[in-house]
Amino acid sequence: MSIYLEALETQVREALDSENLESLRPILADQYAADIADILERLDDEDKLKVFGLLEPELAAEVLDETGSEATRSLLRQLSAEQVGDLLDQMPMDDVLEILTEDVPERQEELLAAMEPEDAAEVRDLLQYPEHSAGRLMTQKFVRIPPNITVSQALQHLRRVDDEVETVNDLYVLNGGSRLVGVVSLREVVTSPPERRVSEIMETDVITASPETDQEEVARMIARYDFLAMPIVADDGRMLGIVTVDDAIDVLAEEHTEDMLRLGAVSDGALFDQPYFTVSLLRVLRSRFGWLLLLFLADTLTGNVLRLFEDQLAAVVALSFYIPLLIGTGGNTGSQTVSTIIRGLAVGDIHLWDTWRVLRRELLGGLLLGTALGVVALIRSYTWDYDIHIALVVGLTVVVICAWSNLVGSFIPLLARRFRIDPAVVSAPLITSVVDATGLFIYLTIARIVLGI
Amino acid sequence: MSIYLEALETQVREALDSENLESLRPILADQYAADIADILERLDDEDKLKVFGLLEPELAAEVLDETGSEATRSLLRQLSAEQVGDLLDQMPMDDVLEILTEDVPERQEELLAAMEPEDAAEVRDLLQYPEHSAGRLMTQKFVRIPPNITVSQALQHLRRVDDEVETVNDLYVLNGGSRLVGVVSLREVVTSPPERRVSEIMETDVITASPETDQEEVARMIARYDFLAMPIVADDGRMLGIVTVDDAIDVLAEEHTEDMLRLGAVSDGALFDQPYFTVSLLRVLRSRFGWLLLLFLADTLTGNVLRLFEDQLAAVVALSFYIPLLIGTGGNTGSQTVSTIIRGLAVGDIHLWDTWRVLRRELLGGLLLGTALGVVALIRSYTWDYDIHIALVVGLTVVVICAWSNLVGSFIPLLARRFRIDPAVVSAPLITSVVDATGLFIYLTIARIVLGI
Repeated sequence: MSIYLEALETQVREALDSENLESLRPILADQYAADIADILERLDDEDKLKVFGLLEPELAAEVLDETGSEATRSLLRQLSAEQVGDLLDQMPMDDVLEILTEDVPERQEELLAAMEPEDAAEVRDLLQYPEHSAGRLMTQKFVRIPPNITVSQALQHLRRVDDEVETVNDLYVLNGGSRLVGVVSLREVVTSPPERRVSEIMETDVITASPETDQEEVARMIARYDFLAMPIVADDGRMLGIVTVDDAIDVLAEEHTEDMLRLGAVSDGALFDQPYFTVSLLRVLRSRFGWLLLLFLADTLTGNVLRLFEDQLAAVVALSFYIPLLIGTGGNTGSQTVSTIIRGLAVGDIHLWDTWRVLRRELLGGLLLGTALGVVALIRSYTWDYDIHIALVVGLTVVVICAWSNLVGSFIPLLARRFRIDPAVVSAPLITSVVDATGLFIYLTIARIVLGI
Repeated sequence: MSIYLEALETQVREALDSENLESLRPILADQYAADIADILERLDDEDKLKVFGLLEPELAAEVLDETGSEATRSLLRQLSAEQVGDLLDQMPMDDVLEILTEDVPERQEELLAAMEPEDAAEVRDLLQYPEHSAGRLMTQKFVRIPPNITVSQALQHLRRVDDEVETVNDLYVLNGGSRLVGVVSLREVVTSPPERRVSEIMETDVITASPETDQEEVARMIARYDFLAMPIVADDGRMLGIVTVDDAIDVLAEEHTEDMLRLGAVSDGALFDQPYFTVSLLRVLRSRFGWLLLLFLADTLTGNVLRLFEDQLAAVVALSFYIPLLIGTGGNTGSQTVSTIIRGLAVGDIHLWDTWRVLRRELLGGLLLGTALGVVALIRSYTWDYDIHIALVVGLTVVVICAWSNLVGSFIPLLARRFRIDPAVVSAPLITSVVDATGLFIYLTIARIVLGI
């Protein structure tokens, strides 16, 4: 794959250097939109436009759909409203919506005015739904059939509307033109006797979602039930559109990136679908600095705790040797728990009503892990300092810190969920700060008691 | 969704309690396999079997396909080889393969013997391919047509083979019965004139993968090109099977869970597709203890470093107050970088040949972030201790540690990739240990020089 892409990139760059652009036209016409988009993202703004200009309108629209927002912005900036309008008219309206709201929000009205009135109206329709809702992700271009027609009539209808719909894998059976009463797959239509009524072969027990449903939830349902599309139905039973499996995959992939970066304390959502090298370094740094600063300030708490125990630390310098080890162990135990709980919440294995069950389980787990690790810590400490009292302090601290970290690590994500905050945002970095400061307090309190200092 | 599932679970439990199982039969027959699987996972072994026994064979096979491995194991343990064989015969062979290799490997031969010879032969075929390869994920039950037939003949053929194939969304055009020469979608077939030749409407520029390709790569390609299935073709051009989009979604979801848990230092791959409550606590603890112990031992390095500077720490106790803050900042900066790089590597934004470019970028980024944060640290330290020398040490250390963490955080994942180790496994926990120990060395060396102790 990448070898192939590299070769294509070389070809494009050579044509740009020799200003022999026309030679590229037939080559590009044969490529997949996703591949062309990848190449465009690696060119500078001027070259982007030159290459983009070589594409047939239909392919150009597909490519625009595949480029990350930085590249999309760059291309749209260089094109007139009329040119952009023509491209947008050829794209699925949910993707147009994304461009108009996320990539070039400042040109939304201007571009809508340049689109076909019918398409613009559809976009305005979708714009009513909340951000990140299924409504924003759906397409209204699905196959609608009435229940009383025959299979062969359904096939005729399908041929007639083929150009106007996005997918034909499922035919939606609507009563009175808008009420969803059943679904029939194209496979079923093709393999049923032509004179059979649609109403006899349709599946009537249809899983649907409302347009207000969160995109991730709809994507998970599509994945769970192996659907190719999910019908979106209003509260009054009117069918509004479908969300297709390729959109579901994109939503899940974006969520994956978000979770990864958030666990790593990178916060800027706008960066999540951007290729590594396309984002300017300054932009990246801005997105990282916020969290780093916040965590730094939270971590200064550890300094406050240590100051409380200044006398003990001055009396027994060896105590400070174990500080990083002990808070590291607390952090590691906690982050194992956090990632397990966040994942469980996300896929729906854990619900809020399981809170006590989860906390009990994690507390017990932490105590058991802590005991096993505490024995190791006690031995290691004794073979280091040959001081059984210090070894006892270290071993005991490991037991308590592991139990405590597990408790905090399961409680914080559940708390975030209760307040409808994405657990992935607050948990991973926050827990480390909490566990660091409280862990030190636990450590030095145990030291004070055991060593009698 | 979950409210609906809760109600279903209550119904099932009530029927079990009142031993009125027959009443469940019609209710279960109407449910989706994924929902029944969810309920089964929450029942004890005996009840699992009772409820499972109420399902019609076809639905039972689908449910078995959806249960996590613990539940699958429990059910299969309680069924005879003949019973299991009949169920497996009705499942997609790639899913049978997963059960035979991952869930009940000890019964592989016995169960293969109980299956239809034809199905067993297909499974043995797939078994040749390496683990986690596309070959293990594919189905051989796709629609094969020759290029010279007409559209209406293709439709007739499709109706004949409908029962034997898994999906009909795409028809694969094979020359000489096995060489892939083109693909035509069912949509195209249905909307083309009946007398048209398949060879005239087929797409000949087909993207394929080899059976040895990694599953994640195939899944990513399916997502990238919005495919419903990807043909798998041997080196000699013979088409072997297809990987379908629902399998691709499962692979990507599993990867997501893996990444999350690995970033949190949970290592046991077998736990990744298990619901939180189904896995026994001891099993979870075993999977966590390994990493915790390893990280603990790695973290003892920090103790060694601190011992090197015993005199300095004894002379200026205030130095120890900053230890958690400084290594915490190093860890946070590093983990931001690690998660960015791992993500970039996974989605293919970053390649090995970009190594130097990445390292330069991250080093520069670390220096800039460090400078900004260092100023904050200097001010905070001065307002704490009113000692400009200590404040200078702390500020300077933040600059160097940020740059260093960024370097380590980008280098380790790239190194792992070079040695074909999954970067997510080694990086996140390892980097913290490396950064902790080296960060302390940096801190106390700067202190020794600046404070002259």
